[in-house]
Amino acid sequence: MRAMTIEAPVSLDNLVMSDRPDPGAPGDGEIRVKLHGSTLNFHDLGVVTGRMSADSGRIPLADGAGVVEAVGEGVSEFAVGDQVVSCFFPDWQDGGATIGDFSRTPGDGIDGFACDAVVRPATAFTHAPRGYDAVEAASITTAGLTAWRALICDGGLKAGDTVLLLGTGGVSIWALQIARMMGARVAITSSSDEKLDRARKMGADFTVNYRNDEGWGTTVRDWTDGRGVDHVVEVGGPGTLAQSIEAVRIGGHIHLIGVLTGASGEVPTAILMARQARLQGLIVGNRRQQQDFVRALDQSGIRPVIDRRFPLESLGDAFRFEMAGSHFGKIGVEW
Amino acid sequence: MRAMTIEAPVSLDNLVMSDRPDPGAPGDGEIRVKLHGSTLNFHDLGVVTGRMSADSGRIPLADGAGVVEAVGEGVSEFAVGDQVVSCFFPDWQDGGATIGDFSRTPGDGIDGFACDAVVRPATAFTHAPRGYDAVEAASITTAGLTAWRALICDGGLKAGDTVLLLGTGGVSIWALQIARMMGARVAITSSSDEKLDRARKMGADFTVNYRNDEGWGTTVRDWTDGRGVDHVVEVGGPGTLAQSIEAVRIGGHIHLIGVLTGASGEVPTAILMARQARLQGLIVGNRRQQQDFVRALDQSGIRPVIDRRFPLESLGDAFRFEMAGSHFGKIGVEW
Amino acid sequence: MRAMTIEAPVSLDNLVMSDRPDPGAPGDGEIRVKLHGSTLNFHDLGVVTGRMSADSGRIPLADGAGVVEAVGEGVSEFAVGDQVVSCFFPDWQDGGATIGDFSRTPGDGIDGFACDAVVRPATAFTHAPRGYDAVEAASITTAGLTAWRALICDGGLKAGDTVLLLGTGGVSIWALQIARMMGARVAITSSSDEKLDRARKMGADFTVNYRNDEGWGTTVRDWTDGRGVDHVVEVGGPGTLAQSIEAVRIGGHIHLIGVLTGASGEVPTAILMARQARLQGLIVGNRRQQQDFVRALDQSGIRPVIDRRFPLESLGDAFRFEMAGSHFGKIGVEW
Amino acid sequence: MRAMTIEAPVSLDNLVMSDRPDPGAPGDGEIRVKLHGSTLNFHDLGVVTGRMSADSGRIPLADGAGVVEAVGEGVSEFAVGDQVVSCFFPDWQDGGATIGDFSRTPGDGIDGFACDAVVRPATAFTHAPRGYDAVEAASITTAGLTAWRALICDGGLKAGDTVLLLGTGGVSIWALQIARMMGARVAITSSSDEKLDRARKMGADFTVNYRNDEGWGTTVRDWTDGRGVDHVVEVGGPGTLAQSIEAVRIGGHIHLIGVLTGASGEVPTAILMARQARLQGLIVGNRRQQQDFVRALDQSGIRPVIDRRFPLESLGDAFRFEMAGSHFGKIGVEW
Repeated sequence: MRAMTIEAPVSLDNLVMSDRPDPGAPGDGEIRVKLHGSTLNFHDLGVVTGRMSADSGRIPLADGAGVVEAVGEGVSEFAVGDQVVSCFFPDWQDGGATIGDFSRTPGDGIDGFACDAVVRPATAFTHAPRGYDAVEAASITTAGLTAWRALICDGGLKAGDTVLLLGTGGVSIWALQIARMMGARVAITSSSDEKLDRARKMGADFTVNYRNDEGWGTTVRDWTDGRGVDHVVEVGGPGTLAQSIEAVRIGGHIHLIGVLTGASGEVPTAILMARQARLQGLIVGNRRQQQDFVRALDQSGIRPVIDRRFPLESLGDAFRFEMAGSHFGKIGVEW
Repeated sequence: MRAMTIEAPVSLDNLVMSDRPDPGAPGDGEIRVKLHGSTLNFHDLGVVTGRMSADSGRIPLADGAGVVEAVGEGVSEFAVGDQVVSCFFPDWQDGGATIGDFSRTPGDGIDGFACDAVVRPATAFTHAPRGYDAVEAASITTAGLTAWRALICDGGLKAGDTVLLLGTGGVSIWALQIARMMGARVAITSSSDEKLDRARKMGADFTVNYRNDEGWGTTVRDWTDGRGVDHVVEVGGPGTLAQSIEAVRIGGHIHLIGVLTGASGEVPTAILMARQARLQGLIVGNRRQQQDFVRALDQSGIRPVIDRRFPLESLGDAFRFEMAGSHFGKIGVEW
Repeated sequence: MRAMTIEAPVSLDNLVMSDRPDPGAPGDGEIRVKLHGSTLNFHDLGVVTGRMSADSGRIPLADGAGVVEAVGEGVSEFAVGDQVVSCFFPDWQDGGATIGDFSRTPGDGIDGFACDAVVRPATAFTHAPRGYDAVEAASITTAGLTAWRALICDGGLKAGDTVLLLGTGGVSIWALQIARMMGARVAITSSSDEKLDRARKMGADFTVNYRNDEGWGTTVRDWTDGRGVDHVVEVGGPGTLAQSIEAVRIGGHIHLIGVLTGASGEVPTAILMARQARLQGLIVGNRRQQQDFVRALDQSGIRPVIDRRFPLESLGDAFRFEMAGSHFGKIGVEW
Repeated sequence: MRAMTIEAPVSLDNLVMSDRPDPGAPGDGEIRVKLHGSTLNFHDLGVVTGRMSADSGRIPLADGAGVVEAVGEGVSEFAVGDQVVSCFFPDWQDGGATIGDFSRTPGDGIDGFACDAVVRPATAFTHAPRGYDAVEAASITTAGLTAWRALICDGGLKAGDTVLLLGTGGVSIWALQIARMMGARVAITSSSDEKLDRARKMGADFTVNYRNDEGWGTTVRDWTDGRGVDHVVEVGGPGTLAQSIEAVRIGGHIHLIGVLTGASGEVPTAILMARQARLQGLIVGNRRQQQDFVRALDQSGIRPVIDRRFPLESLGDAFRFEMAGSHFGKIGVEW
């Protein structure tokens, strides 16, 4: 049994493999899952580099997908051989937000999925989307569900809505695919014309290279004939929020997800107020939302964008690739 | 026919009475209203002191209440003699927010109510709450409806919810009364122990003198046994928002109304995100919400708190009293 | 100036053309629209055959589309030459339902669109979807907006949801296209295998010939692996409601639109209760919903299904074709 | 250890006490509760008289309140000595409805609370309202939560709304108190002037003796000046639904709870449609709703109406009293 453990705070070079006891057989209501894939999030990077608190020796990675090896007493939702994917908040099954920390999130407050197998409550997983490999499936745990919950559950997105996406990371590219699946129009920003070109090929209706456009919020607003966009998936934070507020329509939604540009900063609150807009903080979502999301994916035929895949042994390299920031969509880890 | 007009930007000493032609008889769908009362808002102060743009010669005051003197063809909702109160956004009848400026708000983009009589579309007024005098009725146009829409329409407040109110101005005191009417628990802040005492007598469950308590957000949070409040009526803006975010529960609502502490400032967006809280910008509300609010007031027997009443001739003094900031509830003007 | 007028109650043979004065130039806030197309609804049939009350001499047809010929003072939303389509409830601009009769519906309580041109408030029309001809555009006024409001506005449909449609009339076929546009899965019923085949080619995932399947509610339920469908667009009424209740999932939505099988009948209320399902009555929708719908259609490229087109002169024949009940989608009238 | 068990179908005379083993100590995540009170519902009556299916030997009673005697590992929400009350659906913790049967409801699909003590997951109970005795607390499990969920969670009741209640049973009297607590206006029906008088003393604004008023729906509608009521708590079923539909306003809510008049019957669906009203089936509610309800009660000071109290030994008499139908509010059982 191999398992990835880290001493935090550590540099990525300190990521070492260590022995962990096999988790054994599932108890009542539990399943044993053999893991085969994960994808990286900035949250994971924060944990392994010590920016976020993680207990020493914690197994990293919040996203995990694999195959059910055994089911415990009373489990009827899964059978041996089922493809499954993990839940970011294993205790948040349904209903409104009640969790505001990561004390029970795999790869942070509890052990994650950079290991061979786990035994967990059946309610800590859902079925994987049909036809997805383990890396693809793992991408829905954090990035995919975040985009789905923001646009669909919180935002009530409908066909014809306009959506602004910031950058081409995992959440934004998932949001692009979800928005397109529901008939919405999408504007997306990047500092790379090549990435914008790629987004356009995936269905983005409007692209902005923000490097050449300091007032890109206004540019996006103009694209909507001055009406403003219905939704902004705000993965940036304070460094981009002023432009997002400029871009949003009166009564629109800004889904506040990101801290890429910092944890605190200047916000033009008077304009947010005048726009009568909603700035909705969110962290991923609940298990029922994930089940609904999987149902949507089963029907849609959408496949996530995995920029590059690393073997689990090269997890440190995978994180370094993430830090470089040149990826488009998700970074996969498989084993 | 007398009317209050101002040259903007002006000092309050430049407020002069000038002659305006009588508005005459109502046309199709219009009513003629003889005005008798108004209340002051910071918005009005902004207009008359030139902080907000107002065309030269604009008649001030957004709030107006009086008696229907005549009804035009096709008006069935009102009859001569009905007590009525004005709408802040006369064109926003129902549905989601679609207005983000004051170009059609009386006393700002169009003439207000500091005059003898007006002729307006019937849809620019609603019935006044039963038994209210003109000043009391006028207080619902801006401050009352803002509090009602925030807590009830946007926030879906229910009995047992906890509400944090900042200060004892018109919106906060209306919010206190509305929250109590619906069975909620209220915490309120002030720098004056005397005002806090008065709020407590009106039913506030918890009071905080923020002058002696820099971390009053935490104090309020502690009052809820660490759960956080369900609603914050944020009339402060960037100067208070960090404490409001500290006080709000996971998944709670912050109703962003105010610019008292500035139009822009440092906001701890990462905490807002972690709280999965909603920061909802809003400006007053629509006419249907006002109708519903009036229905609630008719049933409740609540009467608004009018701190002091000025005759229309002393409007400048009334505004000076508002600027002094020592009032509790609303400042009335009557004639 | 020609106009279609009817004496009600009348047989369709009594439909006669009569002279009406030209409506003249638009006044303030009005537009003059030259009409070119309409589509038929059962509501229209009810009016012209006298089943529903209609004043004598009323011009029929609720759906109307054409071109703006002139705009009155103060109209900024439309320009001469714009393609426009009428609103079923010209006074219901936004917000929740407030209308429960047809006293202001064109072709019923007021004159409809079976004529050359009308002058109406600009707010009685919206822009037509881009690239639609007049008949296609007219199909959104009643049938299209009904399907949109039910599934999207009331039902909050999302990708992956399952939808049950009853029959292949105008509302159901619009609902099929809308559901597909949003990534939902669709089951549809008919007594005609040919129509079911056609629906399948349009994207229906599951079809049921109810002539051979008395318990078709259970058949549809089985299709969802026993979970039940998220939405039923109930155009039948009491004759189909028991099966619809059988088919719907726990917590699902039944959008009650139709009276095809009668105005009253036996309903298994205990099962509706046990399903914790919602039976939501609705009649068409408001103007803002129509504007949102047009925006969705502009983005989607969907074109409505017009089974057959009749010249206005043959309106009686068009209604007879409707009564025959063999159509699929909408029946058009153009001139 | 005594426990009430029944052989179903049985007459109430067959209710016998039998020995059950003591449930022992709580395991992980469980609590042991010493029970002291319950209240009767028609659901319970259905179980014990065999109208609803219940396994042989089932301990009856869905409502249960008492004191925590011991807490298992990992339970932080409760401490020994806490007053607690049971959940009708112990597995439905939060979120939308997902349960459509009673297979996991105490006193039906699983053992109920007519016994000395139980060991259950902590999540099968909530805290009792402060100051309630066991019978009062037990009344919230079924009747109280049903009324709360209908009006507040599903209906979004706000001050000034109008509510129609049918009869003076447990759900209706709870609904009366909840509606009053939130500032709503209440009309209530009964065949007893004495009961109506009592309801009026509790705050009902309008009363109708339906024995003398066949068209009581219209009578209630007239009371609202023709507007119709915002909410109907429909505990009757098909026998009263036509009048409820007559009474409800356009766009209003009918909360379909009851089967007192039958499981199926004639419903005027066309009027429901024309009213654009919602008929929402529901069965009780989830645990989070119960927690919110308890919070509201803690703040309000409301005490439920317990018509009469029986000792557990006289459970058969209590059920006979329920069958007689002369009670007002709840019937208590205590031990």
